[in-house]
Amino acid sequence: MIQYVPSLEQLVNELSKLPGIGPKTAQRLAYYILRSPIGYSEGLSSALANVRESVHECPKCFSFTENESLCHYCLDPKRINDSICVVEDPADIVRIDTSGAFRGRYHVLHGAISPLEGILPKDIRLEPLFDRIKAENIQEVILALDADLEGDTTVLYIAKQLQGQPVKVTRLAHGIPIGGDIDYIDHRTLGRALENRVEL
Amino acid sequence: MIQYVPSLEQLVNELSKLPGIGPKTAQRLAYYILRSPIGYSEGLSSALANVRESVHECPKCFSFTENESLCHYCLDPKRINDSICVVEDPADIVRIDTSGAFRGRYHVLHGAISPLEGILPKDIRLEPLFDRIKAENIQEVILALDADLEGDTTVLYIAKQLQGQPVKVTRLAHGIPIGGDIDYIDHRTLGRALENRVEL
Repeated sequence: MIQYVPSLEQLVNELSKLPGIGPKTAQRLAYYILRSPIGYSEGLSSALANVRESVHECPKCFSFTENESLCHYCLDPKRINDSICVVEDPADIVRIDTSGAFRGRYHVLHGAISPLEGILPKDIRLEPLFDRIKAENIQEVILALDADLEGDTTVLYIAKQLQGQPVKVTRLAHGIPIGGDIDYIDHRTLGRALENRVEL
Repeated sequence: MIQYVPSLEQLVNELSKLPGIGPKTAQRLAYYILRSPIGYSEGLSSALANVRESVHECPKCFSFTENESLCHYCLDPKRINDSICVVEDPADIVRIDTSGAFRGRYHVLHGAISPLEGILPKDIRLEPLFDRIKAENIQEVILALDADLEGDTTVLYIAKQLQGQPVKVTRLAHGIPIGGDIDYIDHRTLGRALENRVEL
């Protein structure tokens, strides 16, 4: 039927551009939207417009914010100023912050180095990070990047660039996730967990 | 982070109302939308507005259409007029029509009877179906409803209502899907496939 209803087809087409949404799911969503009370699609439209108008990157740490000047994390006076936690995506900040184990500043790279995908150091927010480390007299840089090839490449690149500078560079520990069953942990993680074992 | 960016939170909230989209997926989609070029969210917004403005139910068969009067299927002069295929959702029409095995008219119930969910015969488009059967002098009603409890209940209800009337009522055959492996077919389907076996 969809082929005879151009605007429905257009909506399916737009929805299927979203990550993880295939044409069948997009069709299901479009029919759902069509069937829901008019308020729903108006709410979604206005949420889209709002996000587009009000959300921008913080000029200092590059997380998303609606504030005129700096973001919530950069403005918070209760945070310590001499350590920066570096993440790939703004969403990672929420995860780390809710753990409660870090109360310093953040820096979002918006990606990781990936020569295979053509993402070079200049394509992510690395220069501003190096500038901040100097300007803000940072004592420790905690690299909270993904534990994959791109994350590892980026960790190595940052460590090399900061070599010889008066700043401590650390990365998140690898190991067994809490609640993890040793039977199901891959051997590389298990190897790291053994190497980094902690004395009780 | 999201808790400090109200408009992002609003978008996540709207997206997570969609079927099959949980809060984590909604967050991923919202970040994707925020990161894509401005054209994308504008395209999605305008697709939403278009659908809302131009798509409505066909007054005869209740499928979705943008036509002023009847839908594509009701207007098509090449279709036979004396059989109606009854489906639960407009999307089902596409599936059935592309099979090429049916070239009659359609009727969309927009749901199925479900006493558990409080959906009674009067809540779906059953009365207009019975009216059409009389008015259009229909010879055969093919019930192409889902093979679940609600579909079966609706099939029984329609069959009972049409009892004694000069119209043939049929339903789709149950059986082994083409390409299906007998090892993986449930025993009820296998039972039906045996009962309805076809002579070669």
